[in-house]
Amino acid sequence: MRTTIGWQADPATHALRRTHLRRRDLRPDDVAVRVDYCGVCFSDLHALRAHKSDTDGALVPGHEFTGTVSEVGSEVTGFAPGDPVAVGNIVDSCGTCPMCRAGQENFCHDFPTLTYGGTDRRDGATTLGGYSREYVVRDTFVHHLPAGLDAAGAAPLLCAGVTVWEPLRALGVGPGSTVAVVGLGGLGHLAVKLAAALGATPTVISRTPDKADEAYGLGADGFVVSTDAAQMEAVRDRFDVVVDTVSAPHDLTPYLRTVAMDGTLSHLGHLGPVTVETTDLLIGRKRLSSAGSGGRPSTAALLSFCAEHGITADIELLPSSQVNTALERLERNDVRYRFVLDMSDLD
Amino acid sequence: MRTTIGWQADPATHALRRTHLRRRDLRPDDVAVRVDYCGVCFSDLHALRAHKSDTDGALVPGHEFTGTVSEVGSEVTGFAPGDPVAVGNIVDSCGTCPMCRAGQENFCHDFPTLTYGGTDRRDGATTLGGYSREYVVRDTFVHHLPAGLDAAGAAPLLCAGVTVWEPLRALGVGPGSTVAVVGLGGLGHLAVKLAAALGATPTVISRTPDKADEAYGLGADGFVVSTDAAQMEAVRDRFDVVVDTVSAPHDLTPYLRTVAMDGTLSHLGHLGPVTVETTDLLIGRKRLSSAGSGGRPSTAALLSFCAEHGITADIELLPSSQVNTALERLERNDVRYRFVLDMSDLD
Repeated sequence: MRTTIGWQADPATHALRRTHLRRRDLRPDDVAVRVDYCGVCFSDLHALRAHKSDTDGALVPGHEFTGTVSEVGSEVTGFAPGDPVAVGNIVDSCGTCPMCRAGQENFCHDFPTLTYGGTDRRDGATTLGGYSREYVVRDTFVHHLPAGLDAAGAAPLLCAGVTVWEPLRALGVGPGSTVAVVGLGGLGHLAVKLAAALGATPTVISRTPDKADEAYGLGADGFVVSTDAAQMEAVRDRFDVVVDTVSAPHDLTPYLRTVAMDGTLSHLGHLGPVTVETTDLLIGRKRLSSAGSGGRPSTAALLSFCAEHGITADIELLPSSQVNTALERLERNDVRYRFVLDMSDLD
Repeated sequence: MRTTIGWQADPATHALRRTHLRRRDLRPDDVAVRVDYCGVCFSDLHALRAHKSDTDGALVPGHEFTGTVSEVGSEVTGFAPGDPVAVGNIVDSCGTCPMCRAGQENFCHDFPTLTYGGTDRRDGATTLGGYSREYVVRDTFVHHLPAGLDAAGAAPLLCAGVTVWEPLRALGVGPGSTVAVVGLGGLGHLAVKLAAALGATPTVISRTPDKADEAYGLGADGFVVSTDAAQMEAVRDRFDVVVDTVSAPHDLTPYLRTVAMDGTLSHLGHLGPVTVETTDLLIGRKRLSSAGSGGRPSTAALLSFCAEHGITADIELLPSSQVNTALERLERNDVRYRFVLDMSDLD
């Protein structure tokens, strides 16, 4: 086994503490990555809250990171030490089901192996995430980080980015599309940037009037205060695609109302049951959908697109020793727009 | 005022009784229609159950009928006495909102005037439906019945037919589409016929194994028993479009599971709240939608399409005096596949 340093959850306090971690010895198709930057995702908070004991394995969060290849297994041909790379929230899948064959490993019928809290398909070990200095991962789930992309700002593309990218692409967003982005956080700010770069005219819908300037700065073409009934009425039936990134449970009705006939609301920020009135879908034949993370081809496509268009996340970069502060602030939505941990302090 | 005979609800018993009804004198843009055949829709049952008193107006159901023009108003140029015509569940709308301008009067922002239980936009009267021998209606909401369509079998096209037609068209169903129809009743059997005529290969999903032969006879290409877990698993992620026509509240989860990646479940048979797990939409980026009745252009297009392809509903034709029997049997789903009332016994 290899050892590294990382941030592991204490089930009693839900705080993370610095500790030694084990990584597997390299298999023939493994890549060892020195983790340089790891994004802090809202789902890391959910995982911490849900983690009551280490009985089912330790919890080390982190599933959007960039780094540098440090070593490769004997059969790896696509990577070499020194390569800048990126890893998202999936590190393996069955490879044989229709979803995997379609390049949508995120929808693997046998459930994909998650980057942390998953179960390795070969040795049964619980996967430990990217809040650590080294990660060992099957080569097919490693992406080359395109030249020119800032490695710290690129880390959130691997989860937040691809989570908004897949629905924008699947829903055909491009020139002429009207797009609204509900919520201007980690997912939302990337949705605005990506939609604008795809040629659409994104409008931001937010509870917070003072985010208007930021929204326009990110590329938005309009700004609607969701608590202002007149402003919401003015955008009734307006948007071909509404990307709802609000991370708390909420009523979808006011946002469905803004969807254009035959348009789609993609509910991305929150997992759990949602209830809608059939008539809110019926009137205008509106569609409710969702999406989450991405398959390998679309992740690669996103990284290329972002390199071409100079898109990275707007981040607050903190030394990894401040991970608990980052999580506390994230819980209060006190971040513009994504925390990224600099792992170099673990050396 | 004009008088006619029809079937009016008794709020105390929820039964319909034969009575004299008033119809307005013809306005310049009105058409008087002798109702020959009127379909019995599940929503007629709902309306009867909900009708507790005549305080808000009498209830005469019926919103899918065919007949013959008997008289026209002074400014009507599109119709003449003797013309075979058809009327659906909408008899007026604001005409100026974006939905009306788009030819989707069924989604009128000011709510369309329903054929029964609505409020006339000019005189404020409660509209009385097609379970009657004469109906007076604004000309723009009357459709010519194409030659060659059986007038009795065509009546259900005006509500059941267009309710499945609009989503099939909006979702791009055509050659190569995989379509499933859940439930083989009034809506479902028309969805099978229309999907097949559009070039798709419809599969019927039903609780009732003995409907298989009927399904194939209607044009289905496959039949799945919804209570058979193995059969349902075999069609996981299979269908681009799932048309759910089940009229009772039910769990959508097993049917969402049959939707292909980026496909849509159109929930047509039941109004009311629906709850779905976000993950059931997320995994495969599936879409939940709905639809109901149709705009004027799509209704006209449906009638042309049906004339061209020889499609009418499979009906049980009863004299209108048996309307209460029809409603009782409909409540038990004891109908193949739509009751149509023959109004000639009202003369």
